Amino acid sequence: MNVLAEIAEQPSVVERLVAANRGRFPALAGAARDVSHVVVAARGTSDNAARYAQYVWGARNRLAVGLTTPSLFGIMAAPPRLTGALVVGISQSGQSPDLVAVLTEARRQHRPTVAITNDPASPLAGAADIVVDLAAGPERAVAATKTYTAELAAVALTSLAFSGHDPAPVADLVPILSSAVTDAARHAPAVAGLVDHHRSAVVARGFHYATAHEWALKLQELAQVVAHPFSAADFLHGPLALIDTGFPVLAVVTAGPTEAPMRDALTAARDRGAHIVALTDVDHPPAETAIAIPAVEPWLSPIVAAPYLQHFTHALALARHLDPDRPRGLTKITRTR
Amino acid sequence: MNVLAEIAEQPSVVERLVAANRGRFPALAGAARDVSHVVVAARGTSDNAARYAQYVWGARNRLAVGLTTPSLFGIMAAPPRLTGALVVGISQSGQSPDLVAVLTEARRQHRPTVAITNDPASPLAGAADIVVDLAAGPERAVAATKTYTAELAAVALTSLAFSGHDPAPVADLVPILSSAVTDAARHAPAVAGLVDHHRSAVVARGFHYATAHEWALKLQELAQVVAHPFSAADFLHGPLALIDTGFPVLAVVTAGPTEAPMRDALTAARDRGAHIVALTDVDHPPAETAIAIPAVEPWLSPIVAAPYLQHFTHALALARHLDPDRPRGLTKITRTR
Repeated sequence: MNVLAEIAEQPSVVERLVAANRGRFPALAGAARDVSHVVVAARGTSDNAARYAQYVWGARNRLAVGLTTPSLFGIMAAPPRLTGALVVGISQSGQSPDLVAVLTEARRQHRPTVAITNDPASPLAGAADIVVDLAAGPERAVAATKTYTAELAAVALTSLAFSGHDPAPVADLVPILSSAVTDAARHAPAVAGLVDHHRSAVVARGFHYATAHEWALKLQELAQVVAHPFSAADFLHGPLALIDTGFPVLAVVTAGPTEAPMRDALTAARDRGAHIVALTDVDHPPAETAIAIPAVEPWLSPIVAAPYLQHFTHALALARHLDPDRPRGLTKITRTR
Repeated sequence: MNVLAEIAEQPSVVERLVAANRGRFPALAGAARDVSHVVVAARGTSDNAARYAQYVWGARNRLAVGLTTPSLFGIMAAPPRLTGALVVGISQSGQSPDLVAVLTEARRQHRPTVAITNDPASPLAGAADIVVDLAAGPERAVAATKTYTAELAAVALTSLAFSGHDPAPVADLVPILSSAVTDAARHAPAVAGLVDHHRSAVVARGFHYATAHEWALKLQELAQVVAHPFSAADFLHGPLALIDTGFPVLAVVTAGPTEAPMRDALTAARDRGAHIVALTDVDHPPAETAIAIPAVEPWLSPIVAAPYLQHFTHALALARHLDPDRPRGLTKITRTR
């Protein structure tokens, strides 16, 4: 099974996800009712879905969301008190013992728990009160693509459930994603200026902070590019020093409150000679290459942006004579102590 | 003023910090008494001190610590509820409006607030109930060194205050730091294998996760190396694909529960041909070059490791013909919307 086939599956994955989890909406609404904050445990690609949850559940559900340090629950055996918390584990495989340890400890402390996983029979699911089933089907490619998008859609769906809404806004993305997976494949030429670069920065802000992290992770996994994700705000705190002529900066510039600070950050990078490629739904971003992504509500934009970062990185891997279906040194399931 | 002079000041900075904040211990103990979790707002180097706080306040004070997303409070104007939270801002200058916005919102929600800052007259300090004064004196070098160490020491001191202990464990670090700042300067030859590399990974776990992030940030600011910080756990989830012969991996391997997983991660990297430099207080770490750092209690180790990562990065900048006192593209205070 190859990465491209799984990227193409994403619209049907989101469609199945909505159907599979509609029945859990009342339980999710109940679980969020009396909590003061949310603690999320995740690693790798799922950590990027957790970053998205920080913004989505924060902005839309007014929940303070913290990403926990699984080491405290696992190897360090010094778990914090979880008073008032809803505890959520996110993992494609649901296998990693340190994430299971977080949910097990939460249960021991009588806190409500949710597992977002592609395997409802996994140990992580077994440790949770409520399971959100990604229903993405087996992911055979080593690099996660469809399960990343499914995790984002699950976070968005959960946000709607927490506040008693119906799943329509996520279901409505299915046809948009269908166009996106086709359209995104057309932008392979955008990688042209980047083939000889082994380093890059990926810059975004707000909801798309997750996109920056996932894009950077995919660049490392598939294209062997050391890519560092930055909030546009942090980018001005030091990393700007990296930029010289031709340095690749990948960015996401979308409509809403993050547009102005993103323009500021990219203009500063461009003044230093950066080569900028931007995923964007606005006109004239400060970039050499602008890849148009569908304009949707800002909080849902990371879901429709996913196929674009995935196709871009796949094309860059091929241009660098790497095999995206057999990335060096990776295994599918990582069991972390 | 140059970076080396400020690195050398660190023992006296920690000494002054203890003296300046002894009187705040009862107020800090009170602030932590009835909270269910801690929300920290910080950016740049201070974000790395916040990562240290996640582990220290988590492991020693059993507090769940989440790093917030200041954008939610600032540009996105969608602040989460802070019920049950102690809200802490960490900033050398105390000037950034988005961090001030987090503390201002916390106060509006009647939550206790703490500012950890080098400027007790700053807007951040003005927005807080309790100010922990870094007392580090003016930091004139653009890259933060002494204020990073001061922020870690402030986090450690605050942990002691939260649990009603006295500041002795931090005060006892002063003579150890005095030796460390001299000893660390002797390891400049360790940079030899790395001068021609523009990329690297920095790997650590547990308390030293903060060290990995700060080392990576300093490498970017001073030595123009794209350095990516990883938890040893996440490192096995994908970034291992980056490694080929000679790829520089910087690591921290210290005694305690993180030693075994760090050895596993570095052995995997070495099997792929990585060139490993480790800061360590154990014997025979899997590394080409081991730089011995003082053996102290694991939770305090990041404080004594700081001069080593700082001197190492300074030496690498010089070897790369860069001026660490005038890093490209940086300004001292960043005001983030």
